Amino acid sequence: MSAQPVLIAGRWRASQATGTFRADNPTTKEPLPDEYPVSSWQDCDEALDAAAGAAVALRRTPPETIAAFLDAYAARAEKRKDELVAMAHAETGLPRAPRLADVEFPRTTGQLRQAAAAAREGSWALPTIDTKTNIRSVLAPIGPVWVFGPNNFPFAFNSAAGGDFAAAIAAGNPVIAKANSSHPGTTRLCAEEAEAAARQVGLPPATVQLIYRTGHADGERLVADPRVGATGYTGSRGAGLTLKAAAEAAGKPIYLELSSVNPVVVLPGALDERLEEVAGEFVGSCLLGAGQFCTNPGFVVLQKGDKTDAFIKLVAEKFRAAPVGTLLSKSVERSLTESVATLVRAGAEVVAGGKPGGGAGYSFANTLLLASGEHFLRKHAALQTEAFGNSTLFVVADDLAELCRIVDHIEGSLTGCVYSHRAGADDAAYEQVAFHLRPRVGRLLNDKMPTGVAVSPAMNHGGPYPSTGHPGFTAVGIPASLRRFAALHCYDNVRPARLPPLLQDKNPTGKTWRLVDLEWTQRNL
Amino acid sequence: MSAQPVLIAGRWRASQATGTFRADNPTTKEPLPDEYPVSSWQDCDEALDAAAGAAVALRRTPPETIAAFLDAYAARAEKRKDELVAMAHAETGLPRAPRLADVEFPRTTGQLRQAAAAAREGSWALPTIDTKTNIRSVLAPIGPVWVFGPNNFPFAFNSAAGGDFAAAIAAGNPVIAKANSSHPGTTRLCAEEAEAAARQVGLPPATVQLIYRTGHADGERLVADPRVGATGYTGSRGAGLTLKAAAEAAGKPIYLELSSVNPVVVLPGALDERLEEVAGEFVGSCLLGAGQFCTNPGFVVLQKGDKTDAFIKLVAEKFRAAPVGTLLSKSVERSLTESVATLVRAGAEVVAGGKPGGGAGYSFANTLLLASGEHFLRKHAALQTEAFGNSTLFVVADDLAELCRIVDHIEGSLTGCVYSHRAGADDAAYEQVAFHLRPRVGRLLNDKMPTGVAVSPAMNHGGPYPSTGHPGFTAVGIPASLRRFAALHCYDNVRPARLPPLLQDKNPTGKTWRLVDLEWTQRNL
Repeated sequence: MSAQPVLIAGRWRASQATGTFRADNPTTKEPLPDEYPVSSWQDCDEALDAAAGAAVALRRTPPETIAAFLDAYAARAEKRKDELVAMAHAETGLPRAPRLADVEFPRTTGQLRQAAAAAREGSWALPTIDTKTNIRSVLAPIGPVWVFGPNNFPFAFNSAAGGDFAAAIAAGNPVIAKANSSHPGTTRLCAEEAEAAARQVGLPPATVQLIYRTGHADGERLVADPRVGATGYTGSRGAGLTLKAAAEAAGKPIYLELSSVNPVVVLPGALDERLEEVAGEFVGSCLLGAGQFCTNPGFVVLQKGDKTDAFIKLVAEKFRAAPVGTLLSKSVERSLTESVATLVRAGAEVVAGGKPGGGAGYSFANTLLLASGEHFLRKHAALQTEAFGNSTLFVVADDLAELCRIVDHIEGSLTGCVYSHRAGADDAAYEQVAFHLRPRVGRLLNDKMPTGVAVSPAMNHGGPYPSTGHPGFTAVGIPASLRRFAALHCYDNVRPARLPPLLQDKNPTGKTWRLVDLEWTQRNL
Repeated sequence: MSAQPVLIAGRWRASQATGTFRADNPTTKEPLPDEYPVSSWQDCDEALDAAAGAAVALRRTPPETIAAFLDAYAARAEKRKDELVAMAHAETGLPRAPRLADVEFPRTTGQLRQAAAAAREGSWALPTIDTKTNIRSVLAPIGPVWVFGPNNFPFAFNSAAGGDFAAAIAAGNPVIAKANSSHPGTTRLCAEEAEAAARQVGLPPATVQLIYRTGHADGERLVADPRVGATGYTGSRGAGLTLKAAAEAAGKPIYLELSSVNPVVVLPGALDERLEEVAGEFVGSCLLGAGQFCTNPGFVVLQKGDKTDAFIKLVAEKFRAAPVGTLLSKSVERSLTESVATLVRAGAEVVAGGKPGGGAGYSFANTLLLASGEHFLRKHAALQTEAFGNSTLFVVADDLAELCRIVDHIEGSLTGCVYSHRAGADDAAYEQVAFHLRPRVGRLLNDKMPTGVAVSPAMNHGGPYPSTGHPGFTAVGIPASLRRFAALHCYDNVRPARLPPLLQDKNPTGKTWRLVDLEWTQRNL
C-alpha cells in the first residue's frame, strides 16, 4: 500500500491500516495525490504504549529541554514555511496571504515560543508552599495527551503544532496527534519537523506521534484507554460529545471546544452613531475565512427601529457584493447547506444568499437570515443550530426587555459582543444586557468583533457548555491553557532533597513565581 | 406529618415529602427521635428556582458581604457549639472530645473564616491583565452548587458547613445542601445558623438551602438540572459514579471525592531503625475514628524479612489490644463486613479481627489482613476493595522490584506515604518507590501517616481517578478549592467603568494579587 506512513514510537512506518483516504483540494474539488491510512487499533495500541514510556521519560527530563524542543520546532517550521503554507493552502483553500503566511503561521510559531517560555519559567504550575505546615504543591504532567485538531486552523490548532499540542507538551506530556482528515499533509509536515526537533534536543522519541484517522469505535476506545492522561478535542459537537461520554465514563479528563453561535448585541445608540462602521466591522468578521471561525459571529440581536432596518439592508448589500469564499471541504458545504435549511424550516427568513455555490470550489452564498424576537423565543433551540461558515442570523427584538429575554435563551458560547453608543447613550441598556449575557459566554467584548483570538495570558477561548465541556478552562492563552494537562501533586513532610525543584527552598530559576504563605514571590525561602 | 422542615427559598417549611426516615444512634443502635422527610422533585424544583434567583442576586453582592456571612456563621456556630457537638455525637458515635469538640469543630469554623478571608481578598480568582491587548480575565461564580456531604465528618465536610460549602459560597455561589442521611440533625442545626447568618448580613435568603434526602432518580436529575452550576460530592464510589454520569451527560461539572486505599510503603531501613515507632504511628492512624477517614491507610506494602514479620506481629497485637471504635451506621458495619469477606475470598489471610462486633453499638473488630506480593499481583483488583473502617491489608513483596510492581497496580488514591530510614539507608529504594507512587496519588507523604488533612493553601485532598473525578482539583485547601466552583470570565476591550472591580486599573482592595503582564503584583496599573 502506498499510503503515507504514521509516526509511532519515533519511527515513520507503514500503518497497520484498515483502509485509506485522500483529502480534497477544496478550491478545485479534486482529490489530492497523497493517500493516508486509516489506522487500526494496533496502531493506536502501539502509540499508547510508546506514549506511556515517553511520559515516564519526560518526568525525568528538565523543563529546559522541553522548552528547547518547542523553540527548535518553531525555528525548523519557519525554515519550511513555504512548503507548509503551500500544503495548507492546497488542503484547506484558505488564502496563502495574508491568512496562512502572515497571520496563522506566525501566530503558531509564536505560540510554540510562548509555551517554551512558560515551560522554562515554571510559574504556570502554581507552585505553592505553606512554610508553617511544610506542605507544598505544584501542578505536574497528567500523562499522554491525545490531540484532535479541527478543520479550520491547519496551523494554529493543528494537532501536531497548535495550541493544545503546545500546552500539553509544555506541561511535560507526550502528545499523540490525530490529524484532521481535511489536512493530513499539513499535519504530516508539522509532525516531521516536530519529530526532528525532538531528536535534535534529545527528547524521548515518542514525545510526538501521529496517526491520521481511526474507526469511530477506536476513537471512543483510545480516549478512554488507561494509558491516557487526557484529551484535547476541537471540532464538531456530535463527534465531541461522543468522545466526551467515552472519556468521562473511564474517568479521563477531556477538554472540548465545540460549536458556538457567538452572539453580537448591537444597541440602538451604536447604530445611531456609527451604523456604517459597525456594518463594515460585522461583515468583515462574519465573512473572514468564509466564516469558518470557532468565534464567528453567527447570531446578532438588534432592537426594532429604522436604523436597524437600514443596518439589515446594508449588511445584506455587503453580503451580496462580497466575494464568496471557499469552504474547507465538501462536508462543510453540505453541513452548512443543511444548517441553513434547518434554520429556514424553523422560520428564519432568507434576506441574502441561502444556497450553495457562488465561489471557487466548495462554497455557499454569503447568507443573512432574519427572525423576530418573538419567533426566536418560540423556536430558540432550532434557531441556534450552528451554521458553520459564512452565514448569520439576525434576530430583532421589540424592546430591551425582549432583547434581554432573547439573551437569556442563548446557549453557552465562546464569545459575546455588545456594541453600544460611544458617548454613553446606551449605558443603562448596556448594564442590563451585559448582566444577562455575561454568564452565557467565555469572553465578553465591547465594540469589537470576536473573530480575533489573541494568544494572551488573559484570553479565554472557552465558555459554558455546550461551547466547551467545562467553563473554567481555556484552550488559548498561556499559562492558563497548560493547566488543563496537569495533575495536582502535593508533598507533605517530604524531605528537602526529595522535593521537585520548583518546590525546594531555593527558587530553581530565580524567576518562578511561587505562592509562599499566600504571597506570590520569586524569592528563595 | 411531624417530620422536620426543609429550608427552601429562605423559609423553613414542611417538605413535599414522599416518605420519612430517622437516623440511628450508632452507639445504642436505637433510632433517634426526629423524623426527616424524603423530598419529592417538587422540593428540588423549588430549591433550584430559588437558588437560580439567589445566584443572580449574589452577582450583585460585594465580596465583603459574602465574607461577613462566613465570619458571622462561624461565630454563631461557636455559640451553639455544645448543642452541635451533642447532636453530632448522638448521630455519628464519634467521641465528643477530643474529636468533635476540640478537633473537627474548630477546624470547621477555621475553614469558614479562611474562606471569608479568601473571598475578601479576591486573589483566589486569579485576576489576569494583559495591558498590551487590554484583555483581562478572572474567575467568577459558576452558579448554584449542590453539596452532598459524607457520613464521616459531620462538621468539616457537612453539606451546610464544611469544605465544599465554604468554597462554593466564598466563590459567590448559593448552595443547596443535601444532608447525609446519617446525620440530618447536625446538618439541620448547621443550616439554621447559616440561614440566620445570611439574614443577619443581608445575603439573598436562598443562599443556603437544605433538603435531607431524595429518591435516586431525583438525585440524578438534580445534578443535571439546567439551573445548576456544579456539584460537590463526597461519599461512596457507587453513588458518586451514578451522579457523575448524570451530571456529565448534561455538561455539568461535578467534583467527587470517592474511595481511596491510601497506600503506605514501609521500607526496610525504617523498620530496622524504628519498628515500634512506625507501628505505633500506623495503628494510631489506622484506628483513628474507627478508620472512617477518606485518607485512612488501608493498604500497606512491605518487603519480606524478619523485621517485617515482627512488624506484622506487633501491629496485630496492637489491633487486638486496642478498643474497638463505634462505626457510623449499620450500613458502614454491613459494608465493612462485606468488604472484608471479599478480601478474604480474594485470598487475604486474616491476621487479626475479621468479624463484626467487639465495640459499643455498630462495630467490627480491628482487622489486619495479609497477602503476598505475588498473590496481590494476581488479584490486584479484588484486593483493592475499599474496606471503609478499622481494617487494613498488608502486602509483603519479595524484593524492591516486586514492591514497585505492586505500586504500579495501585488505583488512584488521595494519599501515598513512604517511611524510610532517617539516615539515608533507604535512599536509593525511596527514589524508585516514590517515582512509581507519585503519579498514583494526590498527596505524597514522608514518615507521616495520611489521616491528618490540614486546611493549608498547599493541601491536595484530591487525586487520580477513581479517588476523585479529576486529578487537577482539591476539595481541601484555600484558595485552590474555591476555583472548582468558578467559570473563567474574560473581558476583551471592555470599557474601564464596565469592568468588574478585580479587573479595573485600581486594585480594589490594595491587597489582591493579580497577574499583570505575567508578573504577580498587588499594585494598581
